[in-house]
Amino acid sequence: MAYQDELNTSRRYLMGPGPSDVHPRVLKAMATPLIGHLDPEFVDIMDDIKAMAQRTFQTQNHLTFVVSAPGSAGMETCLVNLLEPGDEALICIHGLFGGRMADIAERCGAKVIRVEAPWGGPVDPQQVKAALEHCSPKVLAIVHAETSTGVLQPLEEISRLARESGALFLVDAVTSYCGVEVKVDEWGIDAIYSGTQKCLSAPPGLSPVSFSERAVEALEQRKTKVQSWFLDLSLVRSYWAGARRAYHHTAPVSAMFALREAYRLVLEEGLENRFARHRRNHELLKRELEALGFEFLVQPDYRLPMLNAVKIPEGLDEAALRRRLLDEYNIEVGGGLGQFAGRIWRIGLMGESSTPNHVNMLASALRAIL
Amino acid sequence: MAYQDELNTSRRYLMGPGPSDVHPRVLKAMATPLIGHLDPEFVDIMDDIKAMAQRTFQTQNHLTFVVSAPGSAGMETCLVNLLEPGDEALICIHGLFGGRMADIAERCGAKVIRVEAPWGGPVDPQQVKAALEHCSPKVLAIVHAETSTGVLQPLEEISRLARESGALFLVDAVTSYCGVEVKVDEWGIDAIYSGTQKCLSAPPGLSPVSFSERAVEALEQRKTKVQSWFLDLSLVRSYWAGARRAYHHTAPVSAMFALREAYRLVLEEGLENRFARHRRNHELLKRELEALGFEFLVQPDYRLPMLNAVKIPEGLDEAALRRRLLDEYNIEVGGGLGQFAGRIWRIGLMGESSTPNHVNMLASALRAIL
Repeated sequence: MAYQDELNTSRRYLMGPGPSDVHPRVLKAMATPLIGHLDPEFVDIMDDIKAMAQRTFQTQNHLTFVVSAPGSAGMETCLVNLLEPGDEALICIHGLFGGRMADIAERCGAKVIRVEAPWGGPVDPQQVKAALEHCSPKVLAIVHAETSTGVLQPLEEISRLARESGALFLVDAVTSYCGVEVKVDEWGIDAIYSGTQKCLSAPPGLSPVSFSERAVEALEQRKTKVQSWFLDLSLVRSYWAGARRAYHHTAPVSAMFALREAYRLVLEEGLENRFARHRRNHELLKRELEALGFEFLVQPDYRLPMLNAVKIPEGLDEAALRRRLLDEYNIEVGGGLGQFAGRIWRIGLMGESSTPNHVNMLASALRAIL
Repeated sequence: MAYQDELNTSRRYLMGPGPSDVHPRVLKAMATPLIGHLDPEFVDIMDDIKAMAQRTFQTQNHLTFVVSAPGSAGMETCLVNLLEPGDEALICIHGLFGGRMADIAERCGAKVIRVEAPWGGPVDPQQVKAALEHCSPKVLAIVHAETSTGVLQPLEEISRLARESGALFLVDAVTSYCGVEVKVDEWGIDAIYSGTQKCLSAPPGLSPVSFSERAVEALEQRKTKVQSWFLDLSLVRSYWAGARRAYHHTAPVSAMFALREAYRLVLEEGLENRFARHRRNHELLKRELEALGFEFLVQPDYRLPMLNAVKIPEGLDEAALRRRLLDEYNIEVGGGLGQFAGRIWRIGLMGESSTPNHVNMLASALRAIL
């Protein structure tokens, strides 16, 4: 395909770590002719999105909004707004994305204390407790669903430790959001970010974020300017939450149309039903994969239902196999990242890709190929 | 409209400072079911987009790519990658967006030298020459088309001054790109960024960027890490231009489908034809507006064809009038920003919104209302 030619893509089934399949209603909403980003109708749409972000994050946080860039920019938004040079940040690392948080925190000039756990398991709260005896961080950060390993990290005990130590509790919910419980208020989360292309099943490019009152106070008490103008919440919040919507940047209008529709689909299904569906299809996939000889990387109690990390059986050329799945069956599954590159697959059952049909298609294709 | 309801927007005619109207082919391409951001087919799409960005920027620059966020993030990308703490940056300011560049450069820890001209006119190269006698900046930055004032800034003489002083020449082409000549190589531009929602007529949310070899060398000779992880070109470039496309962040797949189609439309029309169309419709609008008693803010030699800044006649309630245009005619025009708030209108004739029909609709509506 040369650029002179019409766009001509294959019809894929997206079962990797994101993006996931997108409902036709979301694609249709996205193709709506544009309105201006300061149009009164667009302000209403932003209000709708904010209300639905609050419901899905299970929070009353006033400062709940959407960063006009992908989940990694949501991560950076939380860190650059909460950290100033010299602040201590305790970062829990049990996969690639915890490491990314530490990298960004260091770029903020923070003193980073790393609490590391082997990839493939969760962080033990006792490790966090021990680390807190030697520091008093402003921010304690952790990934809820490690997309690089398939681990679901329990949060409540670590949240309590953060609160007792006076730290703000920052959570990466990119992959967990809208697929398993994420209870921002009940779990005492002070700052949280996600992405749109996982269990929410909107196209990639936006990052829902929520800040508690304590996080907003920390923002207001900063001594230095936020190092990023684009992500500076003292500016962004007057666009999202100000009495008069002050121009900051031009919001991605079409992507917001899509996000609004994706949220409507989530709320029509209901959060509990959606979580149950993700668990159910995970169980189905598990039975099929184990029958084929695949082993899960993660112990049962900590497995993510929407991101299934399985070890590659000995002797398989995993890259060639993934390529055959894509070329012959139009099925995308994810390879490993970092230390797991070439050693695991990451099979996503996220949002619209979490159906028995997806599981059956993949299992049948694997049976035929293997 | 509550969020339970289906998306239900009015059919607007977008004649403000962006977004502009989007061609149905672009909306249709955007609604294509998604493929993965590391799919070989998506890598081809990125290559297509890069090739078309090079053609429209009129450059051979290898490091030509698209930031996964709006134009303001493109601005920040250029500044955070080229500036390190302590560097001098000479920023020309003749409107809001020059001021934004200075703000961001200061957040990079740069020592900012401001060369300011009254809003509504261009910066005089003699001012730049005088300032260069007292500093030796690493970066000399200027806005080509000031969206806040409607001024087209001549660049060639200032580019020569930058080169003689050893500075990298950074240009904001958000509003000029694909509407008037922007010759990156011929004009000696070292770093340039634009947006998609102006004369390119794609939805907002992406920022095409190009770096010259000199700019890439400066990037490679940095002593400190780029303060933004998300915008760090030492990471982003291996996703866009590396032999193996390394995962950095999840690209906004649907927005890239749309951008590819918008570029195809630009190249099918041809750059020269497109520039001529923008000039022609500007002339038509000028005659209509002057017949209605509006005066242009900017002297004829420096007027932007795609963004027409006109003074509000005495005694008109401009906000009420803009609201009537929107409510009764579905026409959006832009108000003033900063010191021009309430004093000017900014009428956009950008990309798909630059047609005689748009001019005629607006002129007829104004004749009926005034």
